[in-house]
Amino acid sequence: MLSHDVLQALTTALGPDRVFADPETRALYSSDETPRQVMPGAVLFPASHDHVVALMRLAHAHKLPVVARGAGSGNVGGALPVANGLVVSFECMNRILEFDPLNRLMVVQPGVVTEDIGELARTQGLFYAPDPGSGAYSRIGGNLAMNAAGPHAVKYGVTRDHVLALKAVTGEGKTLVTGCRTSKGVTGYDFTRLLIGSEGTLALITEATLKLLPAPETVATLRLCFASNRSACLAVERVMRQPVLPCALEIMDRRSIEAIRPTGTADDLPAGTEALLMVEVDGTQREVPHLVAALKSALNGGEGLLEIREGVTREQAQALWAARKSLSHAVKRYAPLKINEDVVVPVSRLADFIDYLDKLGNLYPFPIVSFGHAGNGNLHVNLMVHPDNTQEMAQAHECLLEMIRTVLAFGGTLSGEHGIGTEKRDYVGLEIQPDTLALMRAVKHQFDPMGILNPGKLFPD
Amino acid sequence: MLSHDVLQALTTALGPDRVFADPETRALYSSDETPRQVMPGAVLFPASHDHVVALMRLAHAHKLPVVARGAGSGNVGGALPVANGLVVSFECMNRILEFDPLNRLMVVQPGVVTEDIGELARTQGLFYAPDPGSGAYSRIGGNLAMNAAGPHAVKYGVTRDHVLALKAVTGEGKTLVTGCRTSKGVTGYDFTRLLIGSEGTLALITEATLKLLPAPETVATLRLCFASNRSACLAVERVMRQPVLPCALEIMDRRSIEAIRPTGTADDLPAGTEALLMVEVDGTQREVPHLVAALKSALNGGEGLLEIREGVTREQAQALWAARKSLSHAVKRYAPLKINEDVVVPVSRLADFIDYLDKLGNLYPFPIVSFGHAGNGNLHVNLMVHPDNTQEMAQAHECLLEMIRTVLAFGGTLSGEHGIGTEKRDYVGLEIQPDTLALMRAVKHQFDPMGILNPGKLFPD
Repeated sequence: MLSHDVLQALTTALGPDRVFADPETRALYSSDETPRQVMPGAVLFPASHDHVVALMRLAHAHKLPVVARGAGSGNVGGALPVANGLVVSFECMNRILEFDPLNRLMVVQPGVVTEDIGELARTQGLFYAPDPGSGAYSRIGGNLAMNAAGPHAVKYGVTRDHVLALKAVTGEGKTLVTGCRTSKGVTGYDFTRLLIGSEGTLALITEATLKLLPAPETVATLRLCFASNRSACLAVERVMRQPVLPCALEIMDRRSIEAIRPTGTADDLPAGTEALLMVEVDGTQREVPHLVAALKSALNGGEGLLEIREGVTREQAQALWAARKSLSHAVKRYAPLKINEDVVVPVSRLADFIDYLDKLGNLYPFPIVSFGHAGNGNLHVNLMVHPDNTQEMAQAHECLLEMIRTVLAFGGTLSGEHGIGTEKRDYVGLEIQPDTLALMRAVKHQFDPMGILNPGKLFPD
Repeated sequence: MLSHDVLQALTTALGPDRVFADPETRALYSSDETPRQVMPGAVLFPASHDHVVALMRLAHAHKLPVVARGAGSGNVGGALPVANGLVVSFECMNRILEFDPLNRLMVVQPGVVTEDIGELARTQGLFYAPDPGSGAYSRIGGNLAMNAAGPHAVKYGVTRDHVLALKAVTGEGKTLVTGCRTSKGVTGYDFTRLLIGSEGTLALITEATLKLLPAPETVATLRLCFASNRSACLAVERVMRQPVLPCALEIMDRRSIEAIRPTGTADDLPAGTEALLMVEVDGTQREVPHLVAALKSALNGGEGLLEIREGVTREQAQALWAARKSLSHAVKRYAPLKINEDVVVPVSRLADFIDYLDKLGNLYPFPIVSFGHAGNGNLHVNLMVHPDNTQEMAQAHECLLEMIRTVLAFGGTLSGEHGIGTEKRDYVGLEIQPDTLALMRAVKHQFDPMGILNPGKLFPD
């Protein structure tokens, strides 16, 4: 438990309605999307940058662990509390501070819901490109901390590619101002991108200046059905070998399609469908039909292609996406726990990797369901397990380690968008070399000399 | 002078033909594009990553300053030697190690000439987007160190946006491997982008994995003539308010046009032309004419617009660009020394800034010539001075300081693409706040505890 004095000091700094140490609130903020629960000592709701400075100074003085939290929608435990530490919820710092369409930027507080940014941008013909699956409820601060991404990344990149400047507070309670408001700028080190994806271990972000792009006029959606997982992956190669860059290129494997059959969204798939691709292209009204034609011509004649279906109206496109969207929940029919690894392999190794996953699935008793952002080589590989079955869980961890070694041997990476958090930190040393990792720790120490910012995350023990 | 022992140790590590301490070689490597000269103690020509490790270990052990050098084409002294220190020329590490069109990447050594990357990429329908003006001779290592950019940045971003991974050597001679080969990856801190733009102060880059994009089918060029500097800037606003994003949007002010008149490239400008815009759009053969039409319609009726001329063939486009390209040398007719500041202001302040520059020009005896990447708000403001005239030089420095304060007051930044080097470091403290700057120094110390990597650059004294 936190001492009365510490709670009193926090309450004095932030105000009485911003510090909660009651069991109900602590329980409410004790978990994220991972199947874990850790009770914090208190939950804080700062309303301003100055509040964050004040609480970090106190945390530094008392050596209290601090975990920043947006919506708690992360998959890897990045926002999991530290026992008896502080959780800093950014829910009350949820204002859009500035929208400047001519300079194509928006200044936001970390508690703004991701999709609200895009919605406001669209009123002026602009858009905010990163589109994590959780965008309807995730907060931009969490997106920044984890460098979130979604289907659009294949064309538009990830969160890190769409931020101009940050304001943040270090582990000592010092204010950082990084980047600039212009679309170009090379003054000093790039602390903006260093903070993005650092999972709350370097500083707490209190303000972000986001880059906006002209919104595409229209989007077309293709659904492609394949006779095998491998043929779908080879089609991904065909798409990435030609010049039309889709704004989404998603894959669902055989197990994914089995999972959605009970939901009805697979009813219209042709017989023999074992894998699906969803391909989207955006652009002007005039150009998109030609881009679609070019993609179709690149795909036609490909091994195992059973059908190409095009969504023309918004409703038709939504129907095509229904299968993909129903997936995250549908897979739970296999088992109560989804161990979700969002590994990445080079596009050229995707077919080999999916073959490998098929073989791996045959070696273990639990289903392995794979889907995700194929254009980036970013697969969500889900091991569907029963958390109470100790033997199965031990096998799952053996399987994971084996798979991650293969991903790295293929020239891939541990995580494309979910991050490391608590869940993948044991594997980080397999990817990052010791000297590089030691330097990352040394840099962390400069931002946070007490080691109080999100301890137990990102770095291996 | 370097001691015989040190030279001997370097020669043993690198081989006899890779260490030069003769006066001719040292003189040859004593300067870059700034009007300064500093004699190094020796010039090294490593041929491999291991050579760089070996030389950095020796430099660390003997506390010898190390300055990395590509083509020496930088404008701000980033590659200027430190007196009696080591210059590490990457000329011999000039191989393209891998070209992987399917995964859209190229692995290069730092000594590869920038344009050679694009040329090879184009053989497979791909391109490397960053296009610094010096690309025909600059080396990619210098581009990475300075985060170089060019006209394309308005659509495609800067060097930092096009690098997947790096291999580098720290100030202690340790090997860093950052980033990954896939188009997505969030494992660990983003050291890739931290190293890019760090001006050789953190590590020496020995290998870079560059991101390639599908090459646009075609490009169209428009030349727009305006009756005043301000009306050209207002046209930039018009372009940036509509959805067609040009791949270049360049401005030349009145003084620039005066400068090129003797070259003949201004002969075909309509009477009364006081400012020029060059606008390029790229895309498919089918789409580009429509994009051009949209741009024209956005621009037509704008204040002070005298003429829009379109270049259709490659030759016509080159003729339109002739004026812009002849500029860098043409301005020298005003005075022998060009103090070139590549400041950036928000696009919405460009017109105010150019008005301000007009007024500033009236206060000083030397011409101020401005041109550059207007779509990014990135102006090259050139003070044309006589270096032997002490009074004029003092006035120039007063004028620069006054201008930079205005740029920052407008929400701009010191440099859009040239970097800080020796030339702008006195101003860095005006832009970056003390706590942020102190943390940058602390991070530098972790990469380079002896402070031997490019001392006297980037940071203020």
